[in-house]
Amino acid sequence: MPLEKFDGLELSAPSDFHVHLRDGEMMRLVTPTIRQGGNNIVFVMPNLVPPITTVQRALDYQKQLQSIEPAVKYLMSLYLHPDVTPEVIREAKKAGIAGVKSYPAGVTTNSSSGVVDYEQFYPVFKAMEEEDMILNLHGESPSGPDITVLNAEEAFLPTLLDLHKRFPNLRIILEHCTTAAAIEAVKECGDNVAATITAHHLYLTVDDWAGDAFCFCKPVAKLPKDKRAILKIAVSGNPKFFFGSDSAPHPVEAKHGGASGKGKIAAGVFTQPYTTPYVVDALERACEKRLLSEDQVTKEKLEGFLGGFGRAFYKVSDDRQERMVLKKQKTIVAESIRAESGNLEVVNFRKGEELGWTVASSSYKLPTKSR
Amino acid sequence: MPLEKFDGLELSAPSDFHVHLRDGEMMRLVTPTIRQGGNNIVFVMPNLVPPITTVQRALDYQKQLQSIEPAVKYLMSLYLHPDVTPEVIREAKKAGIAGVKSYPAGVTTNSSSGVVDYEQFYPVFKAMEEEDMILNLHGESPSGPDITVLNAEEAFLPTLLDLHKRFPNLRIILEHCTTAAAIEAVKECGDNVAATITAHHLYLTVDDWAGDAFCFCKPVAKLPKDKRAILKIAVSGNPKFFFGSDSAPHPVEAKHGGASGKGKIAAGVFTQPYTTPYVVDALERACEKRLLSEDQVTKEKLEGFLGGFGRAFYKVSDDRQERMVLKKQKTIVAESIRAESGNLEVVNFRKGEELGWTVASSSYKLPTKSR
Repeated sequence: MPLEKFDGLELSAPSDFHVHLRDGEMMRLVTPTIRQGGNNIVFVMPNLVPPITTVQRALDYQKQLQSIEPAVKYLMSLYLHPDVTPEVIREAKKAGIAGVKSYPAGVTTNSSSGVVDYEQFYPVFKAMEEEDMILNLHGESPSGPDITVLNAEEAFLPTLLDLHKRFPNLRIILEHCTTAAAIEAVKECGDNVAATITAHHLYLTVDDWAGDAFCFCKPVAKLPKDKRAILKIAVSGNPKFFFGSDSAPHPVEAKHGGASGKGKIAAGVFTQPYTTPYVVDALERACEKRLLSEDQVTKEKLEGFLGGFGRAFYKVSDDRQERMVLKKQKTIVAESIRAESGNLEVVNFRKGEELGWTVASSSYKLPTKSR
Repeated sequence: MPLEKFDGLELSAPSDFHVHLRDGEMMRLVTPTIRQGGNNIVFVMPNLVPPITTVQRALDYQKQLQSIEPAVKYLMSLYLHPDVTPEVIREAKKAGIAGVKSYPAGVTTNSSSGVVDYEQFYPVFKAMEEEDMILNLHGESPSGPDITVLNAEEAFLPTLLDLHKRFPNLRIILEHCTTAAAIEAVKECGDNVAATITAHHLYLTVDDWAGDAFCFCKPVAKLPKDKRAILKIAVSGNPKFFFGSDSAPHPVEAKHGGASGKGKIAAGVFTQPYTTPYVVDALERACEKRLLSEDQVTKEKLEGFLGGFGRAFYKVSDDRQERMVLKKQKTIVAESIRAESGNLEVVNFRKGEELGWTVASSSYKLPTKSR
């Protein structure tokens, strides 16, 4: 039990800087799980159908989320799209919207309205730089003659470096980075370029999603060397790297592939109800396998990764100063969460497997609903 | 229509040097599709449960297959296992068994009885060399700290080269090769080392099976450069490379992953009813995309790849001298094949998609059963 030293540890409540809360029944099902995973500040992705491209829709969405779970601070985003003009950026800034998410066309869930050519958005990026708004990049190049899901992130890195050079004061986040190459690229950039890291990429490699629908996500998990690099940077104390779960709920039917007879599997791993336990469990497993040494995993670095570094980058604070306690306690991941209607079920990452940790405090409880 | 020149072309009936016919109801469903795909000689894999490790079981299996479809010649194999001794090899040779299949432990369907250490089988390989039997290698190393499904084949190549050096006269086939590296390794070996190539690897890359259960198989399809190398060698006229479908039927539920709630997807692509049309269609698509030039695809090379080269390597001939006619005719791949009981359904590769070719002659008919 390499991380036993953390049993009973009290931390600032974590933040999750990349969440997918969807809308409708899915939103009502998923939003309450944010606090179950330990978080009280989240950065909300705008890839609804249709995507959120106006300030008013972002604010309406925020209001809906607040009504479902008021004890979370929702940082909102717009979806980079021709409708998002420099004027919209200035309006968004005034309205308190935190970032603009860029999806290259076609690479992931609901990205068909995404970016084909970045140059057309230079005036928008300029306005964002002036207004100190964050550009959140889904950093993958669309598939091409020699670009596959395996090197799509690496192929995107020149675009990241070019945007950073053109807009040196623009705050940029390379979302859900999955490769050693991406980590190196972000390290090379200035302090205003950061990256988020998911919980599931602390566990997975290509072998895990080859043949397992519930481990398949975009960007796909890569090679063992990439996983080692991600684990290492997550506990490095480098404030440019912080947690964003990219928790992506899909109805179980969309993950089956077979229910429709089509075999297609929706990309996304659902981690929201257990984000903090997953992260600590993954780090502990990495220590057990000697991928990390337990000395590397300190309270300060963990607290920074789980939220402190992200809050500093986003220039946001936890007004309520909530605290969370880590408990060394074995728990079995519930099969799924289900809507009360019975019509919607979302399967948890690592369902039925053992987690070594839970989070607790008067405010935080693990999910009790299970299949 | 780059290969229009082949419309009406008469060829020797093709052979499929890597088939999975299973047993029980699945065997009864799948075996009749061999001739639908155009083939009248097949090399049958021994990975039943339990695996076929005795001459008697191989002969019994052959008899069952013959009773289902007498118009096919079934070349039989044993499963490399401690039960297969040099004495068994000599008995197998006398009984007309063609080869011994080696599965590294744990890499694919029903391989849990597979090989961990090749050295223990050196006396068996020596006996096979003396008896002129074929060693059929599933050429993948088991996953390890830096070995994944992506480089498992390349990691195996030193073993292939070592076995070839130790047993220079042993006929060896690297089954279902999927990488440019494997093709180069086989080319470097003597004439008694060959490789089979599947139909589906003429179509697929990693992007196809990422998120599609019905394109997931082992070895997994690799990168675009590997696919280009496979296409090129398939029409090269090099007799060391010939067709083996590795058609792998699984009940549709095993491909869903979700029916069991577990998300696990059985590895295997089912191509048997359309093997020849798939190959010609894939080559034509490659010509359309300029991955091949139509001049490269000649009648002689196609006929060699589809069977002539393999029959020469296996030292087997088509006693009936059957002929098959290629027809340029659009057809939609049927959804699946179903057992009459209604309890078993196997989904076809590229179900619902268009194929540009069919095979015909008095003896060959495409499947009419469809979902």
